Amino acid sequence: MAQTSTMAPPRPSVGRFLEVRALTEQLAAPLSPEDQTAQSMPDVSPTKWHRAHTTWFFETFLLEPHWPGYQPYHPAYRYLFNSYYEGVGDPYPRAERGSVTRPGAAEVGTYRSAVDAAMVAMLAGGVSPDVARLLELGLHHEHQHQELLLMDIKHVLSCNPLLPAYAPGPGAASGPGAASIEASWRLPAPGWISHDGGLVDVGHEGAGFCYDNETPVHRVNLRPFALADQPVTCGEWMQFMADDGYQRAELWLSDGWATVRREGWDSPLYWDGADGGWRIFTLTGQRPVDPAEPVCHVSYYEADAFARWAGARLPTEHEWEVVAPAVAVDARRASTDDGPALHCPPVRAGGTPPGSVWEWTSSAYGPYPGFRPAPGAVGEYNGKFMVNQQVLRGGSCATPDGDRRPTYRNFFPPEARWVFSGLRLAHDA
Amino acid sequence: MAQTSTMAPPRPSVGRFLEVRALTEQLAAPLSPEDQTAQSMPDVSPTKWHRAHTTWFFETFLLEPHWPGYQPYHPAYRYLFNSYYEGVGDPYPRAERGSVTRPGAAEVGTYRSAVDAAMVAMLAGGVSPDVARLLELGLHHEHQHQELLLMDIKHVLSCNPLLPAYAPGPGAASGPGAASIEASWRLPAPGWISHDGGLVDVGHEGAGFCYDNETPVHRVNLRPFALADQPVTCGEWMQFMADDGYQRAELWLSDGWATVRREGWDSPLYWDGADGGWRIFTLTGQRPVDPAEPVCHVSYYEADAFARWAGARLPTEHEWEVVAPAVAVDARRASTDDGPALHCPPVRAGGTPPGSVWEWTSSAYGPYPGFRPAPGAVGEYNGKFMVNQQVLRGGSCATPDGDRRPTYRNFFPPEARWVFSGLRLAHDA
Amino acid sequence: MAQTSTMAPPRPSVGRFLEVRALTEQLAAPLSPEDQTAQSMPDVSPTKWHRAHTTWFFETFLLEPHWPGYQPYHPAYRYLFNSYYEGVGDPYPRAERGSVTRPGAAEVGTYRSAVDAAMVAMLAGGVSPDVARLLELGLHHEHQHQELLLMDIKHVLSCNPLLPAYAPGPGAASGPGAASIEASWRLPAPGWISHDGGLVDVGHEGAGFCYDNETPVHRVNLRPFALADQPVTCGEWMQFMADDGYQRAELWLSDGWATVRREGWDSPLYWDGADGGWRIFTLTGQRPVDPAEPVCHVSYYEADAFARWAGARLPTEHEWEVVAPAVAVDARRASTDDGPALHCPPVRAGGTPPGSVWEWTSSAYGPYPGFRPAPGAVGEYNGKFMVNQQVLRGGSCATPDGDRRPTYRNFFPPEARWVFSGLRLAHDA
Amino acid sequence: MAQTSTMAPPRPSVGRFLEVRALTEQLAAPLSPEDQTAQSMPDVSPTKWHRAHTTWFFETFLLEPHWPGYQPYHPAYRYLFNSYYEGVGDPYPRAERGSVTRPGAAEVGTYRSAVDAAMVAMLAGGVSPDVARLLELGLHHEHQHQELLLMDIKHVLSCNPLLPAYAPGPGAASGPGAASIEASWRLPAPGWISHDGGLVDVGHEGAGFCYDNETPVHRVNLRPFALADQPVTCGEWMQFMADDGYQRAELWLSDGWATVRREGWDSPLYWDGADGGWRIFTLTGQRPVDPAEPVCHVSYYEADAFARWAGARLPTEHEWEVVAPAVAVDARRASTDDGPALHCPPVRAGGTPPGSVWEWTSSAYGPYPGFRPAPGAVGEYNGKFMVNQQVLRGGSCATPDGDRRPTYRNFFPPEARWVFSGLRLAHDA
Repeated sequence: MAQTSTMAPPRPSVGRFLEVRALTEQLAAPLSPEDQTAQSMPDVSPTKWHRAHTTWFFETFLLEPHWPGYQPYHPAYRYLFNSYYEGVGDPYPRAERGSVTRPGAAEVGTYRSAVDAAMVAMLAGGVSPDVARLLELGLHHEHQHQELLLMDIKHVLSCNPLLPAYAPGPGAASGPGAASIEASWRLPAPGWISHDGGLVDVGHEGAGFCYDNETPVHRVNLRPFALADQPVTCGEWMQFMADDGYQRAELWLSDGWATVRREGWDSPLYWDGADGGWRIFTLTGQRPVDPAEPVCHVSYYEADAFARWAGARLPTEHEWEVVAPAVAVDARRASTDDGPALHCPPVRAGGTPPGSVWEWTSSAYGPYPGFRPAPGAVGEYNGKFMVNQQVLRGGSCATPDGDRRPTYRNFFPPEARWVFSGLRLAHDA
Repeated sequence: MAQTSTMAPPRPSVGRFLEVRALTEQLAAPLSPEDQTAQSMPDVSPTKWHRAHTTWFFETFLLEPHWPGYQPYHPAYRYLFNSYYEGVGDPYPRAERGSVTRPGAAEVGTYRSAVDAAMVAMLAGGVSPDVARLLELGLHHEHQHQELLLMDIKHVLSCNPLLPAYAPGPGAASGPGAASIEASWRLPAPGWISHDGGLVDVGHEGAGFCYDNETPVHRVNLRPFALADQPVTCGEWMQFMADDGYQRAELWLSDGWATVRREGWDSPLYWDGADGGWRIFTLTGQRPVDPAEPVCHVSYYEADAFARWAGARLPTEHEWEVVAPAVAVDARRASTDDGPALHCPPVRAGGTPPGSVWEWTSSAYGPYPGFRPAPGAVGEYNGKFMVNQQVLRGGSCATPDGDRRPTYRNFFPPEARWVFSGLRLAHDA
Repeated sequence: MAQTSTMAPPRPSVGRFLEVRALTEQLAAPLSPEDQTAQSMPDVSPTKWHRAHTTWFFETFLLEPHWPGYQPYHPAYRYLFNSYYEGVGDPYPRAERGSVTRPGAAEVGTYRSAVDAAMVAMLAGGVSPDVARLLELGLHHEHQHQELLLMDIKHVLSCNPLLPAYAPGPGAASGPGAASIEASWRLPAPGWISHDGGLVDVGHEGAGFCYDNETPVHRVNLRPFALADQPVTCGEWMQFMADDGYQRAELWLSDGWATVRREGWDSPLYWDGADGGWRIFTLTGQRPVDPAEPVCHVSYYEADAFARWAGARLPTEHEWEVVAPAVAVDARRASTDDGPALHCPPVRAGGTPPGSVWEWTSSAYGPYPGFRPAPGAVGEYNGKFMVNQQVLRGGSCATPDGDRRPTYRNFFPPEARWVFSGLRLAHDA
Repeated sequence: MAQTSTMAPPRPSVGRFLEVRALTEQLAAPLSPEDQTAQSMPDVSPTKWHRAHTTWFFETFLLEPHWPGYQPYHPAYRYLFNSYYEGVGDPYPRAERGSVTRPGAAEVGTYRSAVDAAMVAMLAGGVSPDVARLLELGLHHEHQHQELLLMDIKHVLSCNPLLPAYAPGPGAASGPGAASIEASWRLPAPGWISHDGGLVDVGHEGAGFCYDNETPVHRVNLRPFALADQPVTCGEWMQFMADDGYQRAELWLSDGWATVRREGWDSPLYWDGADGGWRIFTLTGQRPVDPAEPVCHVSYYEADAFARWAGARLPTEHEWEVVAPAVAVDARRASTDDGPALHCPPVRAGGTPPGSVWEWTSSAYGPYPGFRPAPGAVGEYNGKFMVNQQVLRGGSCATPDGDRRPTYRNFFPPEARWVFSGLRLAHDA
């Protein structure tokens, strides 16, 4: 997901650099060295790997090429902490990151400090616009990994039968699950926001940061449509389950149905109905499902099947982009009572601002017309994921502020569930 | 791929029905009972299965519901020859079709005759517009399976070290392979057909047949672009190979590169360079590669990598649709000197009409805005493949005439190679 | 399983050669070309492959090296019909035998006839003792493949939802399954044949044919034990099932339990309890389970678990060998009322001679002390299967007479179920 | 591998209990929390899991049933740290042990201390003979896990491109690899120790501890044979490699050859010939191969192929047992200059006592005649591994003293290589 800006960079700020870097360490702080080492499935990376890889990014793309005389912290790290940049050498196999126990969590901290010190020294001396752009990219790259860190550690902790919490919070409170699927979460039906369609501009333009895959701005022709004013809730999802949504082939894409059968899915990831009443595992522990909160941790296949069941459809990414700002998917994130907002679980939907879950769209992830990847290794690989993935829009409770904008294109394979992913319905006018 | 028309049907013609049905039998005629039984990989279906399944279609969707008193030919065939229509019951597992030896090829012939006789009797009595539409659909369905039959038997025969020919032809001639990759196939560079972009209508409209996924017509906004006036040739592909195209990670999509490494691809499917000089296996046997013919049997991953290597890109399906008629991808197919046109191999590109290979586009296969699947089981499943696939346009040497039209959307997963698939380049204006 | 004799050969008999060869063709006669082509799992070989491979054996090991001037029937057959003899070249991949449709069944017949004619001519001229020994080996090799042919086609036919019969017989009769597991098959308990143990000779010695793995004769020391006088019956097996035998981990070897869970086994292969009452698929079609007949098509894992459940154990191969002749595992095979004895299903156990099912022993398949593989490619590979397999003794309803002798060591992996395999209990004295 | 003694126990000694427990902690001491968490393949268990599981053993089989009023340390540990004892509940999936980050390494230490304190209190009060036997079993169980801990962490560290050392030692010294395969390790050929064969007793008898699978003593009849007086060396192994040992199908068991091809094996595990000259990774780091040291980390398949290449064979476990004491495989372990003996790598063979590598035998692991598993859960599962495994005899540089005796039967699947496994040749007299 490394991407490169084509925009003019803001003036480099040492303070902002240190702030972003510090947030990563703050997110890792509740985690023991053991927590930071585990890789519970190939898609997951260890926490300490995220900490090291984001550091490697600054070292490889800023310090080494642009600060004369810089000596790499360790000759093997270039290989060890490369995620997928073939342009800087064959990366260490992704699925085996959990086998690399050294450097440990503390040594990674030392590595971070050393690179931070060098970065501060370099920035203090003033940098060229090109380097400033790379810095901006590195900071957004680190923002992305902050969300990945939370996604990944949530999966790791969920594999532990003790269901340990990442952080204290209401999730840890015990109690029965949502009493039953037949219960009375007769929420007010969502409202619909209509759009007349026609020619609209999509994509990013202007002074702020964006990734190359958000460009160029281009004009598309839309038909009239309507978009729901809130994401689908857990209560609505339980109605889908009660109506045999997971058992009816006609609701599903062919690949989705094959996946449901092979994996035995019968509810979203992290849901547990073993003891009557559904409970969910969150970063603050397991707690009852709240019917009013947005459903989270569903795959594209499930989102698509739900929409078909509901007599609606998923929006395209363009429909989402032109309407979402109207429902305040701005940069604000839900306030929460349980400490730092990044400590998910997703917040209640009722009356709250959008942005608590990423929202699957019906758009396959591909290049915008006229798309040009940024030159060099940093930009080498944006297009390289443009197949077999679906676009998600919005942002989640775990998304840092700087990564929320209407044009942002997140993407994952259609079977991915460990993302903080939900959905919003649309229909033709 | 079963799909349903939303168009008014032509008047049902017994003669046309029998003609389409006869072509299937004609295509199967060179094949022994043994040939008709084998399934060389899960994607491949046995010839006699194609013959039975297309018959099942008429029996299940026309005779049973619409001809009072019709008795099914065999009670188990409804299960045995269902491809993927969950609406008419759980289908027999696709990957095990090759284990079903009975009914045999001759008995399938008897089944076909019995259903044909019933169909002729029904049609003679006159049918409703609804049934006429289903008939039309059934005939196009059978056309699709005629091409699949050839794709599939080509793969079966290619697994045989004896490299037997499906039919006699020039392919059987022995001789050295194309002398070397450095050779002198300095063909005239392709010309480029420019398009000014702007608002254009895409999709099918009018009297002729189409599948539901070609509708509705809708207006899209294109940027100026140019499309090559001929598909990429084998000679050009050998230059890509000589330039280490299969060894350079930077040319490939991430999933494509992983596939190349895992599968050990170093040339198109059916190419063999073991004895110096490349040879290809065709339906008329193995023969030297002709540098001037369109490259065939490449995956989307390979097509995309080639385009990147060539400094170009693949066209979108809309770009293809608005320009292709200008290059005569009408309904004419290449004339050939080697007997019936359906007896591939792909014909020479130089000076020949387009349409000898399906052409990968950069468009993921998805629903058109306002798409509505046809009602009932026949239309139940068009949308169900709308993920993880790329659109191909045009038609191949194995495509029956009736299935060639500018709006036709063929689709396969990006790793598929046993399709008669090539590519045509595009670039931004 | 090709093996070589170390014994002096009988005088070569053209008549016997033709008789063995004819039996193979007789066994294949009920099978269509389609039947003869299918390979329903990697362990299964197509019928026409068996017919060709046994012919290849005579061509490769007798005609080519020992009959001057012999021209191979087809240059590619050496590769195509080699099973696993690395010494004569890299064999065609076993799992893809079903993809080779040509030569077809009839052409294989021609191949057989041509090689038979050459063999007859060679034999008529008299052969050396070495060639006579190879002939004897080839005939036993063909006997083995006759049983494999029946095992394999049974599996192929069982995959067909139509459950077609290999041959007419009582199996085809319809009727309810064995009424219930609680039913009254209170058979007389098996008797036990005691043995005092001590030093005994095992292995083959003397004039008749044997494979190299039956030699040399050697002396082993046995403890006193007893062997059941009949194999375990289907009625007894249903008691095991009724006592949750397939659900209780403590009865199973660790690898067996993992297999049961992964594969979902809950009864022997070819049993079907879907409609109440158990039915089994046999070569004469599906019919009710007969509680009195020996249980067949169980894996080693199941046999071992059953023995533990019964408070007994499986015999070692040596125990079996020293006692079995006393229970008439001679060369006689059960007489049957349903035509040729080779047309299984297994015959009734009550009052019938032993030998209707192969019997798993607790002995891993390994070399006898002093074992020496025969020289050359024919003997090259006997030892090469001596790991990860268990020995079976006796013979089945499908075993030709010439392959029944007390010293014969059959072997299969512990998870194999498509063998005509049952078990006989033993216990310490 | 948990097993139970049938012998009278020695008097329980608190001191010995604490000594064994302390050795585990001593072995884990060089390892960081991160090191102790990783699971580099399904066969490997994390260090902290070994530490917890051995503690679980005392808690589950001694404290809970035999010390009234004992409260389990944590209710979930019974599930979390059960290895495979189905009798005490469904175990946590083996392959996911690396995902359980909590309890961490320190908390496991607390768990160990708490259980140790309870054990000391219980032992101080005197225990019954039954409990004394369980204690003895628990101590040997912990010994086994001490070796497994070293095997497993060696594999974990080997996955790290930094090749970190478990402990300081000569291995860390850099230098070129063994210069070449043609080099001059013309060691004195091994001597042969002859045995006349005949009736011998094998198995364990007497006062000392043994596992149930070493019993009962029984008499077997051996043919005359000879056993090498030292294990095969790395120098000899390099001659096998130089003679294309890994490329010649005729040397290999069929399953072995398939494994070599699938895995791409061309040398023992942990060997690296990338930079010319072979180097091996040991617990003290990577160093040149010493031609004189016993070869280690070879699978059964490789051992068997080597023996065939050498014109010899592997010994049976009985042959090994009756001769090995003569070559001083007593309880002494090689002295080493590089610190505690448990800090492998394997020591030099020349002039040193045997016992530096486990030695594969040709015997499949099965029950001795008259074998009876111990009653209850502790003994429930000894027989359950008696299939698909080969016996190894002797002991390695990582084997604690108490686990070395001539009757000890170690066992692993034939493809296992992360064991400290080598071989010793035998031949018929």
